[in-house]
Amino acid sequence: MDPQVRNRFQVLRYTGESLEEIEDQAAVEYPLTIYIDHEEFATIVCTPTHIRELTIGFLASEGLIRNIEDISSLEIDDDKGMAYVELKVKQVISKEFYSKRMIGSCCGKSRQFYFYNDAKTAKTIMTRGKISAEQCLRLMKEMQEGSEEFQLTGGVHNAALGTPEKLLFSYSDIGRHNALDKIFGHCLNQNISLKDKVIVFSGRISSEVVLKVSKIGIGILISKSAPTTLGIHLARDLGITAIGFARDDHFNIYSHPERIIEAEGILQ
Amino acid sequence: MDPQVRNRFQVLRYTGESLEEIEDQAAVEYPLTIYIDHEEFATIVCTPTHIRELTIGFLASEGLIRNIEDISSLEIDDDKGMAYVELKVKQVISKEFYSKRMIGSCCGKSRQFYFYNDAKTAKTIMTRGKISAEQCLRLMKEMQEGSEEFQLTGGVHNAALGTPEKLLFSYSDIGRHNALDKIFGHCLNQNISLKDKVIVFSGRISSEVVLKVSKIGIGILISKSAPTTLGIHLARDLGITAIGFARDDHFNIYSHPERIIEAEGILQ
Repeated sequence: MDPQVRNRFQVLRYTGESLEEIEDQAAVEYPLTIYIDHEEFATIVCTPTHIRELTIGFLASEGLIRNIEDISSLEIDDDKGMAYVELKVKQVISKEFYSKRMIGSCCGKSRQFYFYNDAKTAKTIMTRGKISAEQCLRLMKEMQEGSEEFQLTGGVHNAALGTPEKLLFSYSDIGRHNALDKIFGHCLNQNISLKDKVIVFSGRISSEVVLKVSKIGIGILISKSAPTTLGIHLARDLGITAIGFARDDHFNIYSHPERIIEAEGILQ
Repeated sequence: MDPQVRNRFQVLRYTGESLEEIEDQAAVEYPLTIYIDHEEFATIVCTPTHIRELTIGFLASEGLIRNIEDISSLEIDDDKGMAYVELKVKQVISKEFYSKRMIGSCCGKSRQFYFYNDAKTAKTIMTRGKISAEQCLRLMKEMQEGSEEFQLTGGVHNAALGTPEKLLFSYSDIGRHNALDKIFGHCLNQNISLKDKVIVFSGRISSEVVLKVSKIGIGILISKSAPTTLGIHLARDLGITAIGFARDDHFNIYSHPERIIEAEGILQ
């Protein structure tokens, strides 16, 4: 048991017949505050593993960096839950602007909702790599079997990066967006090529998740969970193949089926 | 089918044997931007039902109002997804301050993590109302059976307010915090007494959820899902009876078991 990821607690368990005191585990929830150029920027509540990857991925998701070279220093104080970042090119980070809603003038278009920083960093995916239906299900199974944290505490989300053939690495976090940011950060940190890669994910296909996948630059998202309407719209708009409800022997394809080998010839 | 809550989509369904085009439904994700005194304050991504309750509950959660009388006007533009609020007492809303992390000087204490606005509005719950184990499970069953949205789209969270005997009302939202804010807003709007009430909830017992329950002023939280460590710490600290994994005939009590009738005499 990694004490960073989960802690033991005494709880009272009721089973319909009795109430007894047992020891249980819960997922650790840890506040990480990110300072940029000596100014407090944001606090993320997360699972305290891979803080460096999380910080880098978060900065990239928010459009503050494009690659690892944009960071001149990154220091993490684990005990206090602080990450101190200095950027090569100082940014005037206007918080007023940063989370402002962008109201498009063209409401008929599906790309109707972004925050300004999303509009700056989300990109349409043009990759042509394909995957078979069986590979999709196998990757999901592999990720779930590998997630010890979830099985023990029931409290974390998983995100993994893979090729169609196998998973390369996987991250867990109590925040689903954090799990994706850890992938993003690791790819930037290690300069991992995203060409023809796949993201496997336990959480819902929401607009935020699709935007993040687009920012990472991945064309195929395989999720165990349901999509939202805006998630589907954005996936269609941003060129992402969104697969939901991937469980056992079935799944749904919500967008861009042309990357699924079996779907060739089926029009949507 | 309420088109506000879910929309139909054409999807390709893979079942291990074939790939066929079917019509499916997905939960609607809707951006709501709240203006306070003509200034853009926040955008919430939500299920577009009970927008009025959501807005009121959000303002109360954020510590901007204490009761409905603090609002001098509230207009909602459904089509654009805008809520325009005017407060009786104009607030200088410093965004710098608003989401700043509060670093306590007393790190040994469990109340180690709050945002400033949480510290202002979270309160210790002193209610003495009790509930039986069977009632807890019955309320959870009632909420789940009543949630048509979840069964059809798999994409929403539910939160309900009840007495030990029965549920009073229930809200669904793609955002778990929104479902709680809708309850908060409805209680404020209708001046509903919170004395000896119970919240039944489908989502995880995270720190944010416990803080919200504390702000609403409820002493008993029954969740279908897992807690986090910080959620447990805060529930213990804020006087909230937190029950997790309430499913079928069992659940765990993480804090303040004195409100559970069967736990009388069992020390924790």
